[in-house]
Amino acid sequence: MKTIAFLLCILIFQNIFGQDNSLSEREFIDLTHAFSEESVYWVTAKEFQLEKVAQGKTDAGFYYSANNFSTAEHGGTHMDAPIHFAENKQTVDLVPLENLIGTGVKIDVSAKALKNPDYLISIEDLKNWEKENSEIPQQSIILFQTGFGKFYPDAKKYLGTNERGTDAVKKLHFPGLSPEAANWLIKNRNIKAVGLDTASIDYGQSTNFATHVALMTQNVPAFENVANLEKLPATGFQVIALPMKLKGGSGGPLRIIAIR
Amino acid sequence: MKTIAFLLCILIFQNIFGQDNSLSEREFIDLTHAFSEESVYWVTAKEFQLEKVAQGKTDAGFYYSANNFSTAEHGGTHMDAPIHFAENKQTVDLVPLENLIGTGVKIDVSAKALKNPDYLISIEDLKNWEKENSEIPQQSIILFQTGFGKFYPDAKKYLGTNERGTDAVKKLHFPGLSPEAANWLIKNRNIKAVGLDTASIDYGQSTNFATHVALMTQNVPAFENVANLEKLPATGFQVIALPMKLKGGSGGPLRIIAIR
Ligand SMILES: [Zn+2]
Ligand SMILES: [Zn+2]
Repeated sequence: MKTIAFLLCILIFQNIFGQDNSLSEREFIDLTHAFSEESVYWVTAKEFQLEKVAQGKTDAGFYYSANNFSTAEHGGTHMDAPIHFAENKQTVDLVPLENLIGTGVKIDVSAKALKNPDYLISIEDLKNWEKENSEIPQQSIILFQTGFGKFYPDAKKYLGTNERGTDAVKKLHFPGLSPEAANWLIKNRNIKAVGLDTASIDYGQSTNFATHVALMTQNVPAFENVANLEKLPATGFQVIALPMKLKGGSGGPLRIIAIR
Repeated sequence: MKTIAFLLCILIFQNIFGQDNSLSEREFIDLTHAFSEESVYWVTAKEFQLEKVAQGKTDAGFYYSANNFSTAEHGGTHMDAPIHFAENKQTVDLVPLENLIGTGVKIDVSAKALKNPDYLISIEDLKNWEKENSEIPQQSIILFQTGFGKFYPDAKKYLGTNERGTDAVKKLHFPGLSPEAANWLIKNRNIKAVGLDTASIDYGQSTNFATHVALMTQNVPAFENVANLEKLPATGFQVIALPMKLKGGSGGPLRIIAIR
């Protein structure tokens, strides 16, 4: 018995020192849409443009390719930094890495949201998830799967309109997180960040962006146009969300991945 | 004795289930310079520009700020995707996450490089590092500390010139990785990626970019203008390097961090 316990300990120790600190053996899931002229941008925002600078053999004999690009901060898979909707709160370069890396939770509301493009994720949805799973761990990163991700980048289906400009704002129809549910998560679960597979954490028909304001006033960033959420389980993964480090930026292009 | 062994096992199990999969308890070190009009760009490249779109209270009563920006792919802390110098190799969006996340190794050559701005990191430097530490693990991400990082963003000191344009190329003086050392690492240590605290993995005086070609022909990406390397130990850290996912891009803005 003593010997068995001893061998067990040896095994466990090996396990710790062999795996604990290495990320190499993990599975990575990319939750990011690639940026291109097709990327979905807010109907009033400057869209993504790539300008080819060089492509081909140089006189010196080596191959060389390079591009320039221009974009709004808020388009494609991106982060809203707190200052986007809350004065004097964190700019994108100053959001602590600790808030962008941590335990992930996926809440799938697609059964309801795909039936109603104006669907608002409710406190009840959160409580139902907890009933089926377990209490949302403190300091988690919460990802909402509305199911709209599968429409990306078809603006007509994804945003509710493929028109652009100020007049198109009224025609936006896609689900979002209710301000009440946002406040509940902040108050009761001390969340690090939220994300979803639509163009905005507020639903398309919002006019006061109350969910953005609720989150960002508390320095909680939001990840928008997140991809591949259907590939995630409800729990048992970590999120790493690294935005482009734009000095003073209100948000920016985000590379977000899950790791299991 | 039996009881002690048993308790030890319990403790160790708790340790595993409490920490193993969570990244939350780790220490994060940001290896990224923030992007601004001060960011260092190649002397012939389009520099970073931010355009303010909105900042202040809206008519609807909430605060709102947003910007647009434009940039070359290759400037500030960024990644060179293999296609930058090797035809038909990986574009930045297609570099596997497995090659961008893994065991980090820091090789400090600053004692030599700070004395000679045209310093080329040699196979001997690699072998010396291995003598002092241990064999570079297979599939590592190698970060070279030349010491030039402390000059960023002072182009005169960091690049060797603060002039810009085609005529300034000849005046570039900063250290880099020799093509021989790059080939040695590929052949003998099967590296995932390399990075350093200068503007290019080839030294400033290179005209044939042989190190870029050697790496990229083998689909090994390079991280350039990496920050804060003096904060890293020689071993015992993981690297997570997530570039902006530019479809077909030859490289792009990179958020690179170390995790301990
Ligand atoms: Zn946004
Ligand atoms: Zn480059």
